[in-house]
Amino acid sequence: MLDGKNIIGYNRSKRGSHTFKTFNPILNIENKTQFYEASAEEIEEALTLAQQASTFYADTSYSHRANFLNAIADAIMALDQDLIELYCSETGLPEGRAKGERSRTVNQLRMFARMLEEGSFVEASIDTAQPDRQPSPKVDLRKIMIPLGPIAVFGASNFPLAYSSAGGDTASALAAGCPVIVKGHPMHAGTGSLVSSAIVKAAKETSMPEGVFSHLNSSGHKVGEALLKSPHLKAVGFTGSISGGRALFDLAAKRKEPIPVFAEMGSVNPVVLLPEILRSSSEEWAKTVAQSVTLGSGQFCTNPGILMGIKNPDLDHFAEILAREINQVSPASMLHPVIAEKYDTGRANMQQQKGTTFVAGATEKSIPNAGRPVILKVSAAEFRENPKLHQEVFGPFSLLVECLNIEDLERSVALLEGQLTASVIGTNEELRGYDRLLKIAEGKVGRLIFNGVPTGVEVCASMHHGGPYPSTTDSRFTAVGDDAIKRWLRPVCYQNCPDELLPAALKNNNPLNLLRRIDGKLTSTKL
Amino acid sequence: MLDGKNIIGYNRSKRGSHTFKTFNPILNIENKTQFYEASAEEIEEALTLAQQASTFYADTSYSHRANFLNAIADAIMALDQDLIELYCSETGLPEGRAKGERSRTVNQLRMFARMLEEGSFVEASIDTAQPDRQPSPKVDLRKIMIPLGPIAVFGASNFPLAYSSAGGDTASALAAGCPVIVKGHPMHAGTGSLVSSAIVKAAKETSMPEGVFSHLNSSGHKVGEALLKSPHLKAVGFTGSISGGRALFDLAAKRKEPIPVFAEMGSVNPVVLLPEILRSSSEEWAKTVAQSVTLGSGQFCTNPGILMGIKNPDLDHFAEILAREINQVSPASMLHPVIAEKYDTGRANMQQQKGTTFVAGATEKSIPNAGRPVILKVSAAEFRENPKLHQEVFGPFSLLVECLNIEDLERSVALLEGQLTASVIGTNEELRGYDRLLKIAEGKVGRLIFNGVPTGVEVCASMHHGGPYPSTTDSRFTAVGDDAIKRWLRPVCYQNCPDELLPAALKNNNPLNLLRRIDGKLTSTKL
Repeated sequence: MLDGKNIIGYNRSKRGSHTFKTFNPILNIENKTQFYEASAEEIEEALTLAQQASTFYADTSYSHRANFLNAIADAIMALDQDLIELYCSETGLPEGRAKGERSRTVNQLRMFARMLEEGSFVEASIDTAQPDRQPSPKVDLRKIMIPLGPIAVFGASNFPLAYSSAGGDTASALAAGCPVIVKGHPMHAGTGSLVSSAIVKAAKETSMPEGVFSHLNSSGHKVGEALLKSPHLKAVGFTGSISGGRALFDLAAKRKEPIPVFAEMGSVNPVVLLPEILRSSSEEWAKTVAQSVTLGSGQFCTNPGILMGIKNPDLDHFAEILAREINQVSPASMLHPVIAEKYDTGRANMQQQKGTTFVAGATEKSIPNAGRPVILKVSAAEFRENPKLHQEVFGPFSLLVECLNIEDLERSVALLEGQLTASVIGTNEELRGYDRLLKIAEGKVGRLIFNGVPTGVEVCASMHHGGPYPSTTDSRFTAVGDDAIKRWLRPVCYQNCPDELLPAALKNNNPLNLLRRIDGKLTSTKL
Repeated sequence: MLDGKNIIGYNRSKRGSHTFKTFNPILNIENKTQFYEASAEEIEEALTLAQQASTFYADTSYSHRANFLNAIADAIMALDQDLIELYCSETGLPEGRAKGERSRTVNQLRMFARMLEEGSFVEASIDTAQPDRQPSPKVDLRKIMIPLGPIAVFGASNFPLAYSSAGGDTASALAAGCPVIVKGHPMHAGTGSLVSSAIVKAAKETSMPEGVFSHLNSSGHKVGEALLKSPHLKAVGFTGSISGGRALFDLAAKRKEPIPVFAEMGSVNPVVLLPEILRSSSEEWAKTVAQSVTLGSGQFCTNPGILMGIKNPDLDHFAEILAREINQVSPASMLHPVIAEKYDTGRANMQQQKGTTFVAGATEKSIPNAGRPVILKVSAAEFRENPKLHQEVFGPFSLLVECLNIEDLERSVALLEGQLTASVIGTNEELRGYDRLLKIAEGKVGRLIFNGVPTGVEVCASMHHGGPYPSTTDSRFTAVGDDAIKRWLRPVCYQNCPDELLPAALKNNNPLNLLRRIDGKLTSTKL
């Protein structure tokens, strides 16, 4: 089944000359399959097919689209152990994680399918005509959200299933009615290809138009750049580094027709530990933080890369327990030698920064491509002076910033860049005294966590996985949860449209039984 | 009262050396007041004040903010005839238009005040905790929309009240909880200044923080550029030309922290006249179209700059009546000599394009700065070959494109750029036969109008005043209507937040009595 080809609409194709292989970081060897990078011609074909499919696909009924998404979920589950084994061989991640991520992927598809059946995502709004209004009559206006058109999704290195071929970006864009072209991540090209086969199978089964989905192999920047430059492309979803996301954003902004790029990028996810809670629970929180820092070798966008507290014996005790816990963690292989190498460099670079001292961490290389957890500490004064210390080190690394007092803590949080999350650990009573700190933190983040760690992102309506730049390129949108669909929709208003020509969501007799805003009031009544 | 000064927070200031005056296009003379362009120092002061005001202002209760907006409306009405006279002297527009636009401005402010009282704009969403969920517990997640921070509003030349100092951008941004800095339009600096005094008066009366609003005089690009480069600025609202909007968009995209720019720019608003309806109603539609083309000297963003039909005797008849109606219109002065001159150049340039022929229009200069209505026609084949013919000529100009048949019409619509609106005039029966044309048109626009002209933009929840590029820089947002507020808000999610620390909109006992999405269902119950 794994042939290394690109999936262009309903065809498999390998017309390019450049090939590459994925890597098994645990065995420390290349995997066997040879992948053919998409050629300029293949990229253009995928774009043309997507463009051709877009009108038909935009017009499919919401329940037809829901069937498609559910069929994708079924087809992914049917890949069974083949998918799990391939996933593990391309990531070094354990089978449990593979299955967990598959569940999340399938659940996301089914969640968007339910949203389609329910229909409120189109935000149907009707203002009825008032022909007799003075001084001028009011026309009949009706508005719904319609799809933007073909979307490019850039697979994430650290979520080969849940943020790649059939991940949250693809699921939300397909739900919105947009054709999707995935630029596969080179590190898990096989996993992406296998999942993409499942999507194509589902598309055929549910009679979706060819071009509603394509999957392009890619080992560098060329495929992505070609996609970004095409006038057929209408938006981009990306998960990855700040430099990668910003490069796409810049390309998109320079186009004759600029298009939205939602890039979910770097974040250090500061965790602030308040003094009162550390008096009684420093041991418990040290263990929880250690787990969060080292979970999945720290390869999560919500990994806590900065810890902050007020220097006193309780914080020292917290650091001691944290050190003990971290030193007990057996390092696991990171996703790829390139990632492990970058981590080692980043970590070493932090150790060389003025004022940082070693708190905990393994030093010897026990297994190939190991992500050895490391905790450093630094004074808040040194931290504030050195912006390099504010940057993310992708992996199981965290920097403990020791502040002198509340003001020192507030000032340190205040100069952080935009983040996906910030966590504040404190007793309910002491949290009340830190309202200014909480306000400062809220201004920096998309999600403010109380007495919890940032890892673990619930997929639901109230989740916001986004945040001020550089955590994302547009703080107004989320990559996770129901509202992720909003990135791919735009409103269109119909003025005085005959009922028979209106989309179903706006017809007088409300055939989809939607809750609609009619003359300002939410109601499911017919007109 | 009119002192030509900048309004920086609660102070009036004229520290710059560059001065300019506004112009009365009817009298063809400069107005007397000397305006002082904001200096770099004054711009920085306005930005710093806005930044300082932003946290406090973001935390004001929705009803407090509603009081502020209503107080602005009251203060504008209290300016009474002073404002109307100044408006007329700076625009050449008649008193009726001034009063109409004032009504719209005041109504918009009151509409956003009502939205604040009602509260659904914050999209409150709650997912309750499930501590016993397997395999892992679900945390408590609550989400609302919060303000982005300081916004710059660039006043529109053609809406000195409704899209300038206290216009739709300012009203929606203030409603969202964002401080606003207006870069006044140089052509109506006095009107902007007078309205801004009213805003400051209202801010003081309702105890809003200094810096919640500032008004900067500006005669060129410098003030805008300085605003765009400031890290304090978080978003931009602009109404004007494609070149102006794109320049701001490009500046914003190049920042270290890119910020959203919502620019509402050019649009030719095609009006398609189908054959069947012209058989019986060509006279009626010719009159309606003539009025729409010449309304306000054609100085509306929804002015119909392209008319399209299938060449036959009925279309010829339509053109004849249109010519008769257009020739009967007495040209009015345009807003400013610069605009009149640009119009004359643009119009003349169109007449020089290959294949265009004259249909109607006055030729002699009857009054100063006259916007003389002109209609040209061209074949669809020539139209498609020459992209210059697709561009907007700002003023009472329209180009009648004669198509051979349906396919010719579809192809011509298909190559238009993004538009605010398209209108289709046809009998209900014939509209059914043009489903492909309607689909093509829908893909190009933000508002699809049936049997109506594009001028006249209703301010309500179902309006969408936006559209694909280049009509705006982001088709997902609107500049008019309730949803205009969405441009200035971002979601923030609170995880496991103690009830007492939650914003009112998310507290268990629902003190604001909001309709909230709780575990996926809209309800106003308490928790």
